[in-house]
Amino acid sequence: MFDKVLIANRGEIALRVARACREMGVRTVAVYSTEDSESAVVSYADEAVRIGPGPSKRSYLSIPAVVEAALRAGADAVHPGYGFLSEDADFAEVCTDNGLVFIGPPSEVTARLGDKTAARGLMSEAGLPLLPGSLDPLSSAEQAHRLADDIGYPVIIKAAAGGGGRGMRVVHDSAEFEAAYQETRAGALALFGDPQVFVERYLPNGRHVEIQVLADRFGNAVHLGERDCSVQRRHQKLIEESPAPRLPSGLVEEMGRVAVQGALAAGYVGAGTFEFLVSPDGEFSFMEVNCRIQVEHPVTEMVTGVDLVQEQLRIAAGHPMTLRQEDVAVHGAALECRVNVENPDAEFAPTPGVLREFRPAGGPFVRVDTHGYPGYRVPASYDSLLAKLIVWAPSRQRALDRMDRALEEFRVEGAGVRTTIGFLREVVADPGFRAGEHDTTIVDRILRERGEPGSRSSGEGVSGAA
Amino acid sequence: MFDKVLIANRGEIALRVARACREMGVRTVAVYSTEDSESAVVSYADEAVRIGPGPSKRSYLSIPAVVEAALRAGADAVHPGYGFLSEDADFAEVCTDNGLVFIGPPSEVTARLGDKTAARGLMSEAGLPLLPGSLDPLSSAEQAHRLADDIGYPVIIKAAAGGGGRGMRVVHDSAEFEAAYQETRAGALALFGDPQVFVERYLPNGRHVEIQVLADRFGNAVHLGERDCSVQRRHQKLIEESPAPRLPSGLVEEMGRVAVQGALAAGYVGAGTFEFLVSPDGEFSFMEVNCRIQVEHPVTEMVTGVDLVQEQLRIAAGHPMTLRQEDVAVHGAALECRVNVENPDAEFAPTPGVLREFRPAGGPFVRVDTHGYPGYRVPASYDSLLAKLIVWAPSRQRALDRMDRALEEFRVEGAGVRTTIGFLREVVADPGFRAGEHDTTIVDRILRERGEPGSRSSGEGVSGAA
Repeated sequence: MFDKVLIANRGEIALRVARACREMGVRTVAVYSTEDSESAVVSYADEAVRIGPGPSKRSYLSIPAVVEAALRAGADAVHPGYGFLSEDADFAEVCTDNGLVFIGPPSEVTARLGDKTAARGLMSEAGLPLLPGSLDPLSSAEQAHRLADDIGYPVIIKAAAGGGGRGMRVVHDSAEFEAAYQETRAGALALFGDPQVFVERYLPNGRHVEIQVLADRFGNAVHLGERDCSVQRRHQKLIEESPAPRLPSGLVEEMGRVAVQGALAAGYVGAGTFEFLVSPDGEFSFMEVNCRIQVEHPVTEMVTGVDLVQEQLRIAAGHPMTLRQEDVAVHGAALECRVNVENPDAEFAPTPGVLREFRPAGGPFVRVDTHGYPGYRVPASYDSLLAKLIVWAPSRQRALDRMDRALEEFRVEGAGVRTTIGFLREVVADPGFRAGEHDTTIVDRILRERGEPGSRSSGEGVSGAA
Repeated sequence: MFDKVLIANRGEIALRVARACREMGVRTVAVYSTEDSESAVVSYADEAVRIGPGPSKRSYLSIPAVVEAALRAGADAVHPGYGFLSEDADFAEVCTDNGLVFIGPPSEVTARLGDKTAARGLMSEAGLPLLPGSLDPLSSAEQAHRLADDIGYPVIIKAAAGGGGRGMRVVHDSAEFEAAYQETRAGALALFGDPQVFVERYLPNGRHVEIQVLADRFGNAVHLGERDCSVQRRHQKLIEESPAPRLPSGLVEEMGRVAVQGALAAGYVGAGTFEFLVSPDGEFSFMEVNCRIQVEHPVTEMVTGVDLVQEQLRIAAGHPMTLRQEDVAVHGAALECRVNVENPDAEFAPTPGVLREFRPAGGPFVRVDTHGYPGYRVPASYDSLLAKLIVWAPSRQRALDRMDRALEEFRVEGAGVRTTIGFLREVVADPGFRAGEHDTTIVDRILRERGEPGSRSSGEGVSGAA
């Protein structure tokens, strides 16, 4: 096992990784920006290195700053968490070149899967079902438009270098296509430094279901069941759960089987997620692979008992996996709610500030992954995720009751600070959600019903905005 | 299901019960003494009623005060928690007479099992193995002494009305017997209002292993595996776990089978615990039945997924159990550490005070049951249990690593406040404990080694003091 791991991230996931390391007897190095000097992981880790000022480009996204910190601290491996540099193939390569083990897939695998068009091609070859759309980079607006017309509307235009729900736009009509195409390209360039986009059919009432995969260097790969992440606002997940409710029988096994097939075809190593869209009639289509630990990994941990971060570390250290597919059993049901420091009454605008009171929920089968604590100053520079509230119960109904109880007792107070807790309780209480009959339009429906009581007429709700 | 439950207890268990009620849609009434007005359950429950001043006799132990509060609040049931009135048959009877459902076994069952001599007789008839000792009340000191001489030393003298590890004394030699007998009688009278005692053989290197049982009103009874509670100081449990490490194969199944047999023979209803002593050669003997939820119930919840408090409520509300023996499966390993506000360097004397800082451990598979919070004033009048830190992992070794990590990050600070956290870490790190080769003498051994480094010579360590 590693002697010392540098954690190239912040917030709750940095603390999550540090805890896993500590349980394995691995020393930890936290990195932090000036704005994050009060973050929990800074005092938790064995060492902490300031790597730059608040803006991520000059700290958490700076490959030289992170690698230098790792080398100076004498770390032998780097855990990238999620976001930031986690899916940056260059970062993985620079780590390797400097003798640091990158805890994630090999850089060439990340590069290949990070190009969403190339990933579609690779997975199609591996036998994964795809939505109709482009398999090669689009060479021109006309070609893209022709393809969209062939597929039929609505279509979705996505950044080839995108992922994580950013840089995409839904087009409902051929007349709107070219403007949307140019806008998505411009957005892709701004967001990812690469204007390439691709087109695929858009399913307005689909469900987002993903498969967790673990693979080692020795050609072993298993899946750990699914997560339903259909509760999204502007393609950002708010609530995740495992198992997915009301899927046709046999569907998860089939999705798991092809995900493992895809992982092996890609030469995947580590923890990864295969994202699928499931249509109302129960057909599934591959969307993308996330080459990292996901925010929502705890729901899988709760139903399988597998510590995914520890597995990442073991795999990266070169151990063959001891977990076989037949050992993976799913027990009960788990839900995760993302508690964000945002104002749900003002378009979920971030509300950074000092947490005068911070009392997470507790009790049986409740887990809170958070970097918050009483007196913590939530900085303004980063995403607004403050805590992940995860519950488990023998059944989905009891898990929903437990989540409602846990959300109710979770106390976050501070001048100007608002959270999504109340809004999450609304979703958890929604009859469609409780029945498991929701799809990715649920949040827009609830917000619409909130704004105009009784109105359900404004049509398909998923916003095309990034 | 009940509409409103009064919780006749305080501290972490009151909050635990309130959470279970809330998840089931049951309203809650907390009761509290003047000293407990800042307790977490007071603000958590739907209603809170002050029932008297600090001393328990005038509040939590006052049957009229509790029953009046329940009737005034319009509660339809009473949950007694553990300790206080939980095993008081009179309390159960007064509740019933006043139209309140007592969440526990019928008063006559509690009365019969509360008399430890009668319980021994009943369980012997039901086929449970007993240590050699008295089956009838002892009529005189001579009779007792004769019996002890027949059994052979060491013997243990226990209060017939005792339980929970209080009111007992070990005798190593016939010459010491009569003085010890008189002292134990005097102690029993002072502690329990009843001087009767009984005698049984004492196993110096036994392990304390108990079986969790659930039984309903319809003659259904199941067991939920075992808990090893051998880590004790002066007969008070410090660390509990499930499964018990290193038991001979088949032993738990056999203990579970006879515990269910005993529960059915006694007409038991609700959650109960059959306590056994397991000898170094793997023989088990019945000790006593605890007619209530145990402090250590969470370890069973973590390995079985069953919410025991919710089961208590369903059973008391008259529902037939849906849980069958074949549905009970034990996954992984769970440990519980009792975090007490005590000074381990001063004979574990209580150190009440204000918690300037209170940051429980968090993260994957960690559960904290506590009524503590930052700023909480730990009162001086009650037992010193502040929090139960519970962890789960796929194996005992990983659970130990997780517990060590969780204990390390658990922060409790306050002027004059000390906790057992550091001492618990010592026990968790002890090679004998890690190997699962310990017995009930482990704490005394560790304390001895601490005081006199290297010394292991002071013999059998379980203290006879209450």
